[in-house]
Amino acid sequence: MELLNELGEWELLRRLAAYAPPSQFDDDAALLQERSGRQLVVNTDVLVEHVHFSDATMAASDLGWRAAAANLSDLAAMGCTSVAGITVALVAPGTTPWSWVEGVYEGLSEALKHEGGILLGGDCSSGSERLLSVTALGYVEDARTVRRGAGRAGDWLICTGPHGLSRAGLALLLGELHSSATDQLTAEQQARAIEAHRRPRPRLDAIAALAASQPTHSHWRVAGTDSSDGLLAAVAAVASASGCGAQLNRTALPMAAELALLPMAEQWCLNGGEDFELVLALEPAWAETLLATLAGCHCIGTLVDDAHQGVCWTESGQPVSAESGGYSHFQ
Amino acid sequence: MELLNELGEWELLRRLAAYAPPSQFDDDAALLQERSGRQLVVNTDVLVEHVHFSDATMAASDLGWRAAAANLSDLAAMGCTSVAGITVALVAPGTTPWSWVEGVYEGLSEALKHEGGILLGGDCSSGSERLLSVTALGYVEDARTVRRGAGRAGDWLICTGPHGLSRAGLALLLGELHSSATDQLTAEQQARAIEAHRRPRPRLDAIAALAASQPTHSHWRVAGTDSSDGLLAAVAAVASASGCGAQLNRTALPMAAELALLPMAEQWCLNGGEDFELVLALEPAWAETLLATLAGCHCIGTLVDDAHQGVCWTESGQPVSAESGGYSHFQ
Repeated sequence: MELLNELGEWELLRRLAAYAPPSQFDDDAALLQERSGRQLVVNTDVLVEHVHFSDATMAASDLGWRAAAANLSDLAAMGCTSVAGITVALVAPGTTPWSWVEGVYEGLSEALKHEGGILLGGDCSSGSERLLSVTALGYVEDARTVRRGAGRAGDWLICTGPHGLSRAGLALLLGELHSSATDQLTAEQQARAIEAHRRPRPRLDAIAALAASQPTHSHWRVAGTDSSDGLLAAVAAVASASGCGAQLNRTALPMAAELALLPMAEQWCLNGGEDFELVLALEPAWAETLLATLAGCHCIGTLVDDAHQGVCWTESGQPVSAESGGYSHFQ
Repeated sequence: MELLNELGEWELLRRLAAYAPPSQFDDDAALLQERSGRQLVVNTDVLVEHVHFSDATMAASDLGWRAAAANLSDLAAMGCTSVAGITVALVAPGTTPWSWVEGVYEGLSEALKHEGGILLGGDCSSGSERLLSVTALGYVEDARTVRRGAGRAGDWLICTGPHGLSRAGLALLLGELHSSATDQLTAEQQARAIEAHRRPRPRLDAIAALAASQPTHSHWRVAGTDSSDGLLAAVAAVASASGCGAQLNRTALPMAAELALLPMAEQWCLNGGEDFELVLALEPAWAETLLATLAGCHCIGTLVDDAHQGVCWTESGQPVSAESGGYSHFQ
């Protein structure tokens, strides 16, 4: 088994360059052609071993895929329809096997092949723990951005797919579920949950559908974010940035079908996180067309005037619980 | 003393957002307006504690400055004259004092204030060791890029300033120098060496001077890189990428004046590293104008036809020694 401290930095960089187009790594930095009429979208995420990933729950190639997918999801959340590429800073101990690094870059490349974009460049260093810092670059047409704060009272809240499945996959991988719960899931459902956790799909395609469903003569105004930190956190972020409250329809939660029989289904749907769908706020006419156009879309509620109410259930007016919500680092 | 695990992630992000323009951190990613006629330049560098920095040799604010400066130097090496900004991924243990993070971001901000550009965004996470991953974005006019491989035999090799001083500063900080050597340096010279190590200046200004000194009717063709890995490594990189050899004039080495009396002066000038000057290959007429225009520029040699000879001394024809050359990670 080849270790990084046997390869050395230059040989490692030479091998990593193979995942980029020819000559992409030959200069001091990467070049991207600009053109008028569009904006560049930039996002950086860092993934640290034992904080964000573990060999116990995912292979190196899954980690690479997820690292790219999580970043590209943030691009989609700004309205990007095309990806320029990513830069990757890799830190790992010298005793790390090359095969692990190879797996990570294969996963990164697979995600880029799927969504577009190339490996633009990056850096590597030895360090005591493994981590990846990924910066993703993409393009959005002028005046077609999606911003958290663009919502208005009366907008429909739309999410682009089911929620909770990634959290179920993590629970299965960690052996968190009692057998009485896992018995409720077929082998195929379990496999889908694990796949959802390991290979999330950023929803750049949903932005294209959004543009296609824009009512004629309407002005582009789309609020939104992605649900990486959970569905409820995404709704709360859009509502708060837009100076609105939100009402969620409890009977219309976008529950992943696989979870129907599990007692924690609602909690995972709301707060499980890492489903990487988009949560949008749209004027009703546009929302209706999008719902009819994009399979898997759900209307989950509305933005309302009262910013102080936060996120409440439409039916009871009670606040939606953020119990077991997002992970906070450093604590 | 406030620690990061007392602040938590959200309060930390709120405080970091104060180093960026208002609302810059409010959305999922950063937006940059594009325009036709220019290219975006992207570079990512990672700095890991005990590998790239240590509390023993620099304060947090120096680390922040250096992290930005090293990245901006790579932008200058591609021909950038203006900086869009940087994203920063910060990893640190929960027991890290807030004052350390504050120092790092103050240093980053000072460098950005000096060179232009803003803090565009970033991410933070807990982790077992402190590190910074910085991605810098800048602009270069179309057809005004500087590429390593653009050199031709007959070009003059120009460097934009003296070399070796940063390495001397490091030696002073690490107490590496025998007192007989430090006695050769005045207190002021020692302070300049330490400042060179802690607060390097990326040479974006030299690119502006390069453009101003272009001979009329000449075609833009500039080869170059920065000397972050050492002067000799920079010359070798330009020569090799350009399919040339290089001859260095031993009597015209760009030795920092402060080093004149030190026995290791030539070695540090050639291989000390981290001076962050530019090493350019230019047609002689252009080189002559630049030398007359930009204070501190030196002609250090020429590119020659024979790629197999590597880098040799003009006087003796002997290869220039890479002894004690660049640091290789993982080994």
